[in-house]
Amino acid sequence: MELTRDAIEHLLDGWPVARLATLRPDGSAALVPVVFARSAGRLWLPVDGKPKRAGAGELARVAHVRRDPRVALLLDQYDADWSALWWLRLDGKAELVGEREAGFDTALGALVKKYPQYEHTPLFQRGTPPTLIAVGQLRVTSWAASADVVDFLG
Amino acid sequence: MELTRDAIEHLLDGWPVARLATLRPDGSAALVPVVFARSAGRLWLPVDGKPKRAGAGELARVAHVRRDPRVALLLDQYDADWSALWWLRLDGKAELVGEREAGFDTALGALVKKYPQYEHTPLFQRGTPPTLIAVGQLRVTSWAASADVVDFLG
Repeated sequence: MELTRDAIEHLLDGWPVARLATLRPDGSAALVPVVFARSAGRLWLPVDGKPKRAGAGELARVAHVRRDPRVALLLDQYDADWSALWWLRLDGKAELVGEREAGFDTALGALVKKYPQYEHTPLFQRGTPPTLIAVGQLRVTSWAASADVVDFLG
Repeated sequence: MELTRDAIEHLLDGWPVARLATLRPDGSAALVPVVFARSAGRLWLPVDGKPKRAGAGELARVAHVRRDPRVALLLDQYDADWSALWWLRLDGKAELVGEREAGFDTALGALVKKYPQYEHTPLFQRGTPPTLIAVGQLRVTSWAASADVVDFLG
């Protein structure tokens, strides 16, 4: 069964983590966990100062969406009680947004409000222009294992 | 920084959930959470009896890997303490394995041992031949936010 519209809205506003799939040049999917905030109907992913694998050069996910904007995000929570399982999948198009572009400041405010961790973590990578990844044209798919979890989520 | 070999082995054996990316015919990535067990050097995903979105017809992930075997799996755990974050990514090739094929019985035993939930959840979908998805040719990538979490995971 599917999640209710209320549950989906609630999760998009408040769920703390998503798993992002971008597409490599060879067409394979690259997965990474991400934080995100919703602003103006899009989901915004920081390219922040948390330590990253690549020491130098453009972050892989940024290079990927520059080449192919198709991305997917998955929100879910594992539970040993399988009747409590649910997931919310978002297929969309990603765009790189710089600090002088529309929506940037509002989205940044939404990220800072959602994640107090940014008091101590840089919002951007050192040595690169401040950039956010905005995911729009969202197509939503959801699933829940039981009516109980649908009720629980709203 | 990267996870240690011990931590990776431990996670591949015991971590309860992964997020799976398969490739749709149009080349976009389809995400879904999955359970898995390791057996004979491969990760095995059930096509089990947990309720699924599609009421009829072949499960999307099965159709996808039949067409393009490239898959990715992500293991990670979100934590509000960002110094505790880590992830383990596995890029590999998926194969559909039927009940008379090599490795099937051993993998089934590993799944049942790892997930006591299968005492109450059917291991296979009703009306379809028993099938497991075996993911091999694994390329491992890992990341950890701090030395503390690397130590903690092993």
